[in-house]
Amino acid sequence: MQNTQFDTPEYLAKVDAWWRAANYISAAQMYLKDNPLLKKPLTANDVKAHPIGHWGTVPGQNFIYAHLNRAINKYDVDMFYIEGPGHGGQVMVSNSYLDHSYTDIYPEITQDEAGLKKLCKIFSFPGGIASHAAPETPGSIHEGGELGYALSHAFGAVLDNPNIIAAAVIGDGEAETGPLCAGWFGNTFINPVNDGAVLPILYLNGGKIHNPTILARKTDAELTQYFNGMGWEPIFVEVSDPAHSHAIMAQKLDEAVERILAIWQDARSRSANDATMPRWPVLVARIPKGWTGPKTWNGEPIEGGFRAHQVPIPTNSHDMSTADALEAWLRSYRPEELFDDNGRFLDKWREISPKGAKRMSVHPITNGGVAPKALVMPDWTKHALKIGTPGSQDAQDMIECGRLMADVITANPDNFRIFGPDETKSNRLNEVFKVTNRQWLGVRDAAYDEWIAPVGRVIDSQLSEHQAEGFLEGYVLTGRHGFFASYESFLRVVDSMITQHFKWLRKCKTHAPWRKDYPSLNLIATSTVFQQDHNGYTHQDPGLLTHLAEKKPEFVREYLPADANTLLAVMSEALTSRDRINLIVSSKHLRPQFYSADEAKELVREGYKVIEWASTCHDGEPDVV
Amino acid sequence: MQNTQFDTPEYLAKVDAWWRAANYISAAQMYLKDNPLLKKPLTANDVKAHPIGHWGTVPGQNFIYAHLNRAINKYDVDMFYIEGPGHGGQVMVSNSYLDHSYTDIYPEITQDEAGLKKLCKIFSFPGGIASHAAPETPGSIHEGGELGYALSHAFGAVLDNPNIIAAAVIGDGEAETGPLCAGWFGNTFINPVNDGAVLPILYLNGGKIHNPTILARKTDAELTQYFNGMGWEPIFVEVSDPAHSHAIMAQKLDEAVERILAIWQDARSRSANDATMPRWPVLVARIPKGWTGPKTWNGEPIEGGFRAHQVPIPTNSHDMSTADALEAWLRSYRPEELFDDNGRFLDKWREISPKGAKRMSVHPITNGGVAPKALVMPDWTKHALKIGTPGSQDAQDMIECGRLMADVITANPDNFRIFGPDETKSNRLNEVFKVTNRQWLGVRDAAYDEWIAPVGRVIDSQLSEHQAEGFLEGYVLTGRHGFFASYESFLRVVDSMITQHFKWLRKCKTHAPWRKDYPSLNLIATSTVFQQDHNGYTHQDPGLLTHLAEKKPEFVREYLPADANTLLAVMSEALTSRDRINLIVSSKHLRPQFYSADEAKELVREGYKVIEWASTCHDGEPDVV
Ligand SMILES: Cc1ncc(C[n+]2csc(CCOP(=O)(O)OP(=O)(O)O)c2C)c(N)n1
Ligand SMILES: Cc1ncc(C[n+]2csc(CCOP(=O)(O)OP(=O)(O)O)c2C)c(N)n1
Repeated sequence: MQNTQFDTPEYLAKVDAWWRAANYISAAQMYLKDNPLLKKPLTANDVKAHPIGHWGTVPGQNFIYAHLNRAINKYDVDMFYIEGPGHGGQVMVSNSYLDHSYTDIYPEITQDEAGLKKLCKIFSFPGGIASHAAPETPGSIHEGGELGYALSHAFGAVLDNPNIIAAAVIGDGEAETGPLCAGWFGNTFINPVNDGAVLPILYLNGGKIHNPTILARKTDAELTQYFNGMGWEPIFVEVSDPAHSHAIMAQKLDEAVERILAIWQDARSRSANDATMPRWPVLVARIPKGWTGPKTWNGEPIEGGFRAHQVPIPTNSHDMSTADALEAWLRSYRPEELFDDNGRFLDKWREISPKGAKRMSVHPITNGGVAPKALVMPDWTKHALKIGTPGSQDAQDMIECGRLMADVITANPDNFRIFGPDETKSNRLNEVFKVTNRQWLGVRDAAYDEWIAPVGRVIDSQLSEHQAEGFLEGYVLTGRHGFFASYESFLRVVDSMITQHFKWLRKCKTHAPWRKDYPSLNLIATSTVFQQDHNGYTHQDPGLLTHLAEKKPEFVREYLPADANTLLAVMSEALTSRDRINLIVSSKHLRPQFYSADEAKELVREGYKVIEWASTCHDGEPDVV
Repeated sequence: MQNTQFDTPEYLAKVDAWWRAANYISAAQMYLKDNPLLKKPLTANDVKAHPIGHWGTVPGQNFIYAHLNRAINKYDVDMFYIEGPGHGGQVMVSNSYLDHSYTDIYPEITQDEAGLKKLCKIFSFPGGIASHAAPETPGSIHEGGELGYALSHAFGAVLDNPNIIAAAVIGDGEAETGPLCAGWFGNTFINPVNDGAVLPILYLNGGKIHNPTILARKTDAELTQYFNGMGWEPIFVEVSDPAHSHAIMAQKLDEAVERILAIWQDARSRSANDATMPRWPVLVARIPKGWTGPKTWNGEPIEGGFRAHQVPIPTNSHDMSTADALEAWLRSYRPEELFDDNGRFLDKWREISPKGAKRMSVHPITNGGVAPKALVMPDWTKHALKIGTPGSQDAQDMIECGRLMADVITANPDNFRIFGPDETKSNRLNEVFKVTNRQWLGVRDAAYDEWIAPVGRVIDSQLSEHQAEGFLEGYVLTGRHGFFASYESFLRVVDSMITQHFKWLRKCKTHAPWRKDYPSLNLIATSTVFQQDHNGYTHQDPGLLTHLAEKKPEFVREYLPADANTLLAVMSEALTSRDRINLIVSSKHLRPQFYSADEAKELVREGYKVIEWASTCHDGEPDVV
């Protein structure tokens, strides 16, 4: 690689131009509905009646995005972007527009003044595009509306994608949430040979909506301790004066990428089975909130604090008294240097975009996966229980399920995974451990550990429903298959995450028909309320069934298989289905077995079936499909 | 204080006896239904048919509990116990039995062989007592079934209780959950002058249900970094040989308590307004899981790892083949040295119990609060809007609400608090900041901060619904008043916590009538689905209404006040109510105002009212009570 090329002042000037263009478009999306290149002085007709959106997080993220582009070019790596503070929806839209993918996907958003005008108009507008990194946003697999899942999604996505780096930007507010705090421990589960890498970029801009942030007020020394303690190696970057910032950022990001490449190279000189947990880098970026926007307003500081969070200047079409400040701010990006007379982004700047599928906005991992394969579903009837007199024989449904899952693992060695919060064995899936292990890169202790190894298809060694759900979401959103098995009551812990996933699925259909479909998100709930052993009342809450039943049936299926054969038939159906959330409520205890394999198949196919041997009434719950 | 007395081998021998007794009773509760003192050899009649419960966490916690008793005596401090791994339900039961409070509360559990027998029998038995630290457990304010909230509950409880230390035991599994990871940042909000202290005891026993734990496999050096990074000072204690452990534990716990007392003394020589965040101690305790139980079983190690989690030896009344091992284990505690012939715990050991209300099992904070005061509710009609023609005037309901809340704060300077995830101002409660600040002990920055101070009635500077909800739960469970205001959609993040609180309230009535009642848990949901501004679809999910509507109406009220006056009336009703969860769905945007103060009062009182000026149909949503 020709290092010099990417480190010259000339190259960095191009990065700066890209950044200015992204900032310009992002600010314009909030405020303008016409005159998007400011070819004429700003008038009330040009400005929206209710400018809305978030500004604070945007310029810093645009800066990061531009530099990630540079790193992709310099190191010829595959990266994609997770926008933790997804509320800065302009970031991924603007950068996708600049790299032309936005126009490829939405041809009506042309690369000229008319296209730019349209882009501004539709932003955060009824019937237009979301103010968040939503399904319609090119390159996003993460919506970012409900903060907390940037890391778990990133980890889930890079599992079994050994050559991909997830650049996961995390707001310092987001970093205060429970799920995100737990997310750092995801490094315990990433195999540096078989999996890709997550490069967390902790974006310390100092402010949330109205508060300072806890981490931004800590010293670099304290943050170093925090991250070292969790096994990460922080690389600090602090910028404030745009003119001198590019060289600093380029150098720090290079350091991070080179570190990842070195970890890979080193680990990959040995077997995946010999891997240990590396000290992955985390980029800690002190970048002012609302950088390059208005520095102060009404005597209060905007840039660098919470006041930059949303729309920083109150200009709108009904009150243009502050329009001068808005115009000065927008012109500070010098749009006339960035776009030609027709409003087309100049080739001399655009040329630094990664090419084709290397663009983060269209990287295949973000739309269906790198090399998505349908699940190879072994014939479940091989494991079917032979049913004599219905109800006369007892079995443990989940044990039988484990046998089938072992086959699924064997048939799909690199695109099927099981996730859970320390409950795989307790949920009686033991049989899977005949063919695989729990993946765990932490320190091992042969005297105590059971089925723990650096390579394995089960990830269940962190007691966190948020992590299990987030990993699985990241995994299926990148085209792979799996399930998360949980005690029914504690699945409630991730109610809201499941809802967010449901909304993502639905919006893909309504707003982003260009998106490929996804393997379903499969949830197994065991230890049900009706079959508690010693935990009793304290653990009871079947509310998830009701919660999901409220949602659009097109995307949600709830199954209550009454015995082992119906459970196997349901799993076979669920694991090969697409674009759904399947909630399978199952039993792990000994219970009577009723249905033959054929009956089970029909039950799952038809949803309901009159069973001959019990045509008036029977003990098993009906499958609710 | 006479340090020597508590540090002599004689005193530590008493602590050891107490510990052995607690372990003995705890193991007996799992297995025995008769012969509780092993006066005769063990027979099938003595053993339960299905021994259930958790063993692993118990002996370590009993050890901690015994030493906390010693520290209470030595330093004459007020402490109470939060059992993070609440599944070791025997811990608090056994220790309460030993300090006599159990018999005081449940006289049928006498201090003799018959009482002990009953205690064993009812444990984790239908119609008996929970296997968790449930409402019927003396001294508990924290159920521990759903892991993750030990710290947030502890912090909530010590706010405004300046002389109390919450000893919060945290499982190393629990320490992997999101809510617990976020919980460490609670130190940012504790004022060392006005509030009490949380002493977290991270119980690194190495195993979860079937997995190692992430933190136990880290080195002391790494853990030091982790905690220092978050502003805590770890004190490590590692024990394995019981004979030599008491002196070590005593010394380390002394160090922790002395550190807290020193922090208090120092901070309290100045004003609360000048307080800064101290480096509070955290006790990191490496204590083997299932300590003193069977060391191995079938050639596999039990003590020290996950295999000790539940019932370690499979003896039961149907299969006594392993009874020898069980009996040997139970006898290893030498019950004959601990109890007299009638089965009464010997005075020479019991005398080391703290006395009266100093016992953690009956500390007033755990039953209604230290000095609970009813909320002084100012007359809300002072802030009532004058309504002319209904619907002709617009106002922002939450702004009006803020005025009333300012009055509530002024009238209740030390027993009312507002919690939130960075949304108090966004939820338009600005008026409260005329009379108070956000409490924040972190580094301040006058250039940027707004209403941030070491003392204040609002705690909303951590972006975490888990923390806001957990703080509020801890605060009301200790007899104080408050609310948590959230965006409606993100309140879903804590669905399961709200459900756990509901179950606690209900079980107090059915299983623990001796418990005093609690101020209600009040939740304000704003930014409702129907009134989103720029966030739109990504933020929408009103499911909490449905979720709570499924629960027993006796404990849950849902209010949808249609305008400011009804909101004020609802708040007045909700804040003074007891033993309920009140969900108040409100609006923060300008909207028409309908009801006069009198109408609003009647609406809230009657739940529904035919409004004369709109007797067929009107725009406001009806209040659903
Ligand atoms: C779980 C959750 N709670 C609350 C919110 C409301 N909210 C939106 S943005 C924001 C502040 C975000 O701060 P930060 O993560 O630092 O992002 P940035 O400063 O980059 O905008 C909050 C609290 C949310 N989006 N998600
Ligand atoms: C949120 C949640 N998820 C899952 C469980 C199921 N569960 C019960 S105990 C346990 C392991 C607890 O380990 P730890 O916190 O270390 O406690 P200890 O070892 O002291 O028993 C798990 C996963 C739970 N109780 N709560």
